[in-house]
Amino acid sequence: MSEALVAPLSDADATIQSMDDASPAKWHLAHTSWFFETFVLRDHVPGYRIHDERFAFLFNSYYEAEGARHARPHRGLLSRPSLDEILAYRTAVTNAVLAAVPDLPPEAEALVALGCHHEEQHQELLLTDILHHFSVNPLQPAVWPGAPKVPVGMPGPIGWIEGATGEVCIGANIETSSTSRDVDNRVRTTTYSTSPQARGEVERAQTATSSTSLPFAFDCEGPRHRALLHPHALADRTVTNGEWAAFIADGGYRDPRHWLSDGWTWVQREGIDAPLYWQQRDGVWTRFGLDGRRPIDPAAPVTHVSFFEADAYASWAGARLPTEFEWEAAAAAHDPASGNQLDTAGPVEPRPSIGGPAFFGDVWEWTGSAFRPYPGFRPPEGAVGEYNGKFMSGQFVLRGGSCATPRGHARASYRNFFYPHQRWQFTGVRLAKDL
Amino acid sequence: MSEALVAPLSDADATIQSMDDASPAKWHLAHTSWFFETFVLRDHVPGYRIHDERFAFLFNSYYEAEGARHARPHRGLLSRPSLDEILAYRTAVTNAVLAAVPDLPPEAEALVALGCHHEEQHQELLLTDILHHFSVNPLQPAVWPGAPKVPVGMPGPIGWIEGATGEVCIGANIETSSTSRDVDNRVRTTTYSTSPQARGEVERAQTATSSTSLPFAFDCEGPRHRALLHPHALADRTVTNGEWAAFIADGGYRDPRHWLSDGWTWVQREGIDAPLYWQQRDGVWTRFGLDGRRPIDPAAPVTHVSFFEADAYASWAGARLPTEFEWEAAAAAHDPASGNQLDTAGPVEPRPSIGGPAFFGDVWEWTGSAFRPYPGFRPPEGAVGEYNGKFMSGQFVLRGGSCATPRGHARASYRNFFYPHQRWQFTGVRLAKDL
Amino acid sequence: MSEALVAPLSDADATIQSMDDASPAKWHLAHTSWFFETFVLRDHVPGYRIHDERFAFLFNSYYEAEGARHARPHRGLLSRPSLDEILAYRTAVTNAVLAAVPDLPPEAEALVALGCHHEEQHQELLLTDILHHFSVNPLQPAVWPGAPKVPVGMPGPIGWIEGATGEVCIGANIETSSTSRDVDNRVRTTTYSTSPQARGEVERAQTATSSTSLPFAFDCEGPRHRALLHPHALADRTVTNGEWAAFIADGGYRDPRHWLSDGWTWVQREGIDAPLYWQQRDGVWTRFGLDGRRPIDPAAPVTHVSFFEADAYASWAGARLPTEFEWEAAAAAHDPASGNQLDTAGPVEPRPSIGGPAFFGDVWEWTGSAFRPYPGFRPPEGAVGEYNGKFMSGQFVLRGGSCATPRGHARASYRNFFYPHQRWQFTGVRLAKDL
Amino acid sequence: MSEALVAPLSDADATIQSMDDASPAKWHLAHTSWFFETFVLRDHVPGYRIHDERFAFLFNSYYEAEGARHARPHRGLLSRPSLDEILAYRTAVTNAVLAAVPDLPPEAEALVALGCHHEEQHQELLLTDILHHFSVNPLQPAVWPGAPKVPVGMPGPIGWIEGATGEVCIGANIETSSTSRDVDNRVRTTTYSTSPQARGEVERAQTATSSTSLPFAFDCEGPRHRALLHPHALADRTVTNGEWAAFIADGGYRDPRHWLSDGWTWVQREGIDAPLYWQQRDGVWTRFGLDGRRPIDPAAPVTHVSFFEADAYASWAGARLPTEFEWEAAAAAHDPASGNQLDTAGPVEPRPSIGGPAFFGDVWEWTGSAFRPYPGFRPPEGAVGEYNGKFMSGQFVLRGGSCATPRGHARASYRNFFYPHQRWQFTGVRLAKDL
Repeated sequence: MSEALVAPLSDADATIQSMDDASPAKWHLAHTSWFFETFVLRDHVPGYRIHDERFAFLFNSYYEAEGARHARPHRGLLSRPSLDEILAYRTAVTNAVLAAVPDLPPEAEALVALGCHHEEQHQELLLTDILHHFSVNPLQPAVWPGAPKVPVGMPGPIGWIEGATGEVCIGANIETSSTSRDVDNRVRTTTYSTSPQARGEVERAQTATSSTSLPFAFDCEGPRHRALLHPHALADRTVTNGEWAAFIADGGYRDPRHWLSDGWTWVQREGIDAPLYWQQRDGVWTRFGLDGRRPIDPAAPVTHVSFFEADAYASWAGARLPTEFEWEAAAAAHDPASGNQLDTAGPVEPRPSIGGPAFFGDVWEWTGSAFRPYPGFRPPEGAVGEYNGKFMSGQFVLRGGSCATPRGHARASYRNFFYPHQRWQFTGVRLAKDL
Repeated sequence: MSEALVAPLSDADATIQSMDDASPAKWHLAHTSWFFETFVLRDHVPGYRIHDERFAFLFNSYYEAEGARHARPHRGLLSRPSLDEILAYRTAVTNAVLAAVPDLPPEAEALVALGCHHEEQHQELLLTDILHHFSVNPLQPAVWPGAPKVPVGMPGPIGWIEGATGEVCIGANIETSSTSRDVDNRVRTTTYSTSPQARGEVERAQTATSSTSLPFAFDCEGPRHRALLHPHALADRTVTNGEWAAFIADGGYRDPRHWLSDGWTWVQREGIDAPLYWQQRDGVWTRFGLDGRRPIDPAAPVTHVSFFEADAYASWAGARLPTEFEWEAAAAAHDPASGNQLDTAGPVEPRPSIGGPAFFGDVWEWTGSAFRPYPGFRPPEGAVGEYNGKFMSGQFVLRGGSCATPRGHARASYRNFFYPHQRWQFTGVRLAKDL
Repeated sequence: MSEALVAPLSDADATIQSMDDASPAKWHLAHTSWFFETFVLRDHVPGYRIHDERFAFLFNSYYEAEGARHARPHRGLLSRPSLDEILAYRTAVTNAVLAAVPDLPPEAEALVALGCHHEEQHQELLLTDILHHFSVNPLQPAVWPGAPKVPVGMPGPIGWIEGATGEVCIGANIETSSTSRDVDNRVRTTTYSTSPQARGEVERAQTATSSTSLPFAFDCEGPRHRALLHPHALADRTVTNGEWAAFIADGGYRDPRHWLSDGWTWVQREGIDAPLYWQQRDGVWTRFGLDGRRPIDPAAPVTHVSFFEADAYASWAGARLPTEFEWEAAAAAHDPASGNQLDTAGPVEPRPSIGGPAFFGDVWEWTGSAFRPYPGFRPPEGAVGEYNGKFMSGQFVLRGGSCATPRGHARASYRNFFYPHQRWQFTGVRLAKDL
Repeated sequence: MSEALVAPLSDADATIQSMDDASPAKWHLAHTSWFFETFVLRDHVPGYRIHDERFAFLFNSYYEAEGARHARPHRGLLSRPSLDEILAYRTAVTNAVLAAVPDLPPEAEALVALGCHHEEQHQELLLTDILHHFSVNPLQPAVWPGAPKVPVGMPGPIGWIEGATGEVCIGANIETSSTSRDVDNRVRTTTYSTSPQARGEVERAQTATSSTSLPFAFDCEGPRHRALLHPHALADRTVTNGEWAAFIADGGYRDPRHWLSDGWTWVQREGIDAPLYWQQRDGVWTRFGLDGRRPIDPAAPVTHVSFFEADAYASWAGARLPTEFEWEAAAAAHDPASGNQLDTAGPVEPRPSIGGPAFFGDVWEWTGSAFRPYPGFRPPEGAVGEYNGKFMSGQFVLRGGSCATPRGHARASYRNFFYPHQRWQFTGVRLAKDL
């Protein structure tokens, strides 16, 4: 599917890096194939010949164990290799993985699964990075022009769902060797391949070699353990654009009492006065999306807000953010497959939530939980051990997946994480309160 | 006692700010008196006349509700008011508080107690800030020259203390109005006054007006609540300088596998290769302390290490940092009064720990817990509500108190907090492990 | 010719900005056409309709009088408009100018000439900016692969040419209205057009409407005036790569005695130890050029050195840099047409100078003269008055033209100027000494 | 006299560094004595014992040849040595110089003269640095409170003095060995000593050992040479505060047409809208001076303006800045001793100019000349050769001396120099125009 995402992009579109946090589309495409090439083909396929020795330097993201690499802020300075060359690289790697799958040892099969989920993560990043890149172009081009929006009904006032109290089970069961795979996962992991045919082949290949074990989860989602919940309730939906406009109108961005100290510093220093991509002209708020600049939909979930903003909004609303455990305990009973995620037919944007409580899709929900290891957490050995553990300082957990998250990539135990000032992902807010 | 701490300092010594994180000694002296003057005298003593209207601008630290203030990085540009003028200001405020105490309403009595604890915090900061200031002077002057060090015995290998498992009670009972005071606290709070006589008067005055209620605690230490502990053990002492030197010698600062990603960035960018104040010459490590530059004592607890370093050391040692709940559950049975803290006779520096497990004094111990609110936490109303709640992002909790913490200021529920790169406080490391 | 220069470039190649000093190739193409469109078509062609109203914001370089513009450091974030769209824009503007030339008023004719010379300047910048962009790509792609270099003979030791002493005439005669044009110029100005046919047309059109007057010169080259020369001599050729390697080997970059204070700060801060694009591996110096990375040619003029380096080299060599007046007095007798400039058949790089004294082509020669106005200088009225006068602080004058300067764009009175640390142009060194 | 200048300062006042460009008063005092100690006593007095070996590191300003030194931006972090210790250092050095003078070799006598002029330079810097330091203190303390100002008459409109045309002689005769001294200089150089008695002794000592030769001049003032002047006129006085207020009121700081490009960037980035130390409240302009904050005197020369501002003002006024040669040719006929300089009775501030043309004192006058070497200039050998030559890039020449320049330190050939954005010296503007 990654190839489908870049179909509307020119070589130049795919080359630019619009801020240090983002990467060029070309880089995402090449990096995810480099991951397969390095950890699967190079390490587990005898006789495999590296496609281009220079790519390790260019497309290693942050794996210190894999040696020197191109500085992240310079990723946008690479007009060569071209988009076409990178697509050819991808095809070569994908074909080599397909050919190798039937004979892979079990630990390499786990790496194939990891590689597929890794690519799904980058599919979401690719979309949000393109969105940012197009947003800084004064011409404000649309990735997918899309159709005019038809307003749907407004959601009613927030309702409160009382959460469980006492000890609950949290997290995913993880085999400490990180080599677990599972049948369900096989369907999802096919999304990385370049054609329906290829997709089917990987699926079949993996099925043929797998024995059923645990569902896939990243290392940081486990170990599964007990956590203690105190009396609380969660909102039955996320905060809307309309509600956020009221927060702005009430001076929410100018009153330090609502803000964490670091957040207030950030607001002052950066001149923040609205969500990312919002602009006000003649009293009307617009936002920039993958379909260009359009008026905000007051009924849709607010998105592109930072943790600092989410926390300030909650303070203003007399509430707080949920903990990640409160969220997971409540979400576990809901079906991840029902949300507004990437593979649905419609446009890639949050949609008004009309109906029962929804926990998956639309926007990632900031929690009040710092991203720290679960009891008993140990990172896997080797370079892939750098996957999540080393990011466990300074970031906050988000839950639930967004409209840009590939379907199948959201689950109750999934822990996304970003720094509290970051907001170029599709991030939103669900309120909680003590009972 | 604050006055006693600055006795060895010249006007110029007390004026300089050696980094943005630190403040001049003069500023600490004036700010703590401004706190009393503003929240006690101005707000609760009819007819009180402000000593100098301009001081609110100069000596407000961060209370947004109290209006504009002098930018923190410019605190070191104030040669006026002089140290003498500030000592005179302190005397005037102290005398006015003493005179007012008998007639204060209960909510103001709570503010007096808060002001005393607030001043104790600044006494520790004053010492660590002076230490930093003297350390950047190429002449390396000593605050207190002190005597040559006599080595004592080396502590033996770390022993492991198995911790409680299951639900435990954590935190302090807090009256949500933040107006609680207590008898025990009265003795401690006298430390802010300018003379033994004055100290006695404040003590008597407070005793006379108080009814016994809860022991003093800062807002962030409560509410008291249940927490769930998983099987674990804690080291029976903190890591020593000798052990840290072995970590350095083993390449601990050059191996990214031990480090959190943000920590590794910090190490690389700042060229960190040892604790703050350590220098190596001709193979010998020295450290700078309040008694000047001297060889490290391999038996004494390592100090002036950041969270990033503490976490990397733990990773290198095959262990981890304790959570703040594990620490509190273990420390609650120990006596805070027994540790090496500020008011003891000897020099202000960590001392070798020979004997049973000690949890208080010597060095603040980094925990693996992000500084976040306890369940049910609500900041108090008004300006003093900015006290701790607004700092609850990006920082980690430290426990136990240090050799620079005023005696009486350490307790099992006390939550100190700093950013993960900061290390100019007396910060150290206790290891923990899963069982 | 601009179109020919970008023929080897992809859309992505033409989009990237590799440093703030440089601009994307696309931007150069569009900006030079915007200059014609704005100052000729919009201002002097009744009924002309702007091609795209948004381009003024995107492609204005620095004309304050022309309103807000896209921030220079963000020029590389524009994947749209595409290279094809910009080439179409150029064709439209060129055709409109061609159609308009017969009927233009005299002051607009002068602007056409100015626009042509302006475009020639940007042709050189386009090449040096592409060179920089390709140099930061770890793949080190060549713009024009070129053939292996065949060494030619080494130039002999520097000879000294005694210069004129006393009063000399310097500078170009300038009509203060800036509306001068000339016949010779017409040939050169055709270089901007898109085809030989179009070129011929512009030439004919201009010839048809012009009466002979002064040769073209930029405003800062005049007024022509007397200057006083003191006894001196100039080297008969520029410094070579081989001589520069001796300077490096002698510790030239590590000895502060040779350096201006600002230059020494720059060397230390940036870690400068060789000309830009030089690398040493296994004792062999290579340089990066438009033909990729190759060994340096010790016989060829050194290039990509800053004023600071040029001055330090001169100090090391016991000489000094020439003043711009000494240079012009000596060069006036030589033929600008004979140098190694852009339109020759060979590759775009400095070539060994074997033969008599050459003053034009190969490398721009740093002079010791600050770029300041000549006696009686007045900038023209209006937006084009911002052309050169406002840059007259902090920069130094270079003379002579380089291998990337379009033929016809070099002349004895030409004053190029850059900041003393800049070196991505083809800049070199000629020595001078007092007699 | 240096000691007299710091008499009103406390130890803390003398310790602070309020910006990187400035130095603490203590540092000026110590550095000038270190200059004598190093270049006279250490190098020329057999058996001299260095007062404190650590001072070379602390008080070397920029002499690379003298080894490592304390980083300039950290000069304000030295509370030790105290002001008293530095005054004792000065007394010791002064006494040692006095004792040595009778036996000094001629080259050392020249260094004594150089040291005296060097100290005079630092006396002016000491005053302007203190002024800056006090200006950033919100309490706005006055160094010398002074008396209320009595307005004097307004100067009339600017008159124009036609200057010489053709070749003129410029600069001072310099012995290339830099060892020249002169009788007149002896009186001035006594200003560095600590008491009237000591002053007399130095004077007598120098007289005894000197043979008359050239008047003192810094290396950059020579060689004396011919320069060519074009027809021009100079204003007969400098621009006043009242005239500057009109420039502000006319939008001078908001119109880019008046500004050099670098100047406009500086104005925008720094938010400049008036001279340094000016503030407007309720429509009234005040300025901060050594006598505190007071209303501007519209009749007095404007001061604390940068070259960028001076140039913009001249552009706005339809004039230009004089060249340094035009200035020197006109000033040579006037008596430097008649100006408003440091040793006069009144306060240290520019005073209204009523009467004939004055070229010396009040304010340094920005010229349009970049600070570059005169024809034939060669820096002296050795560390003192770093004195002026290495600063010859990026700076502009100022002429005439100011109210803070020690009497005797101003002369027609004197070349002061600063970067075009700097304005914490007493800098002002004289207009010029072409004829």
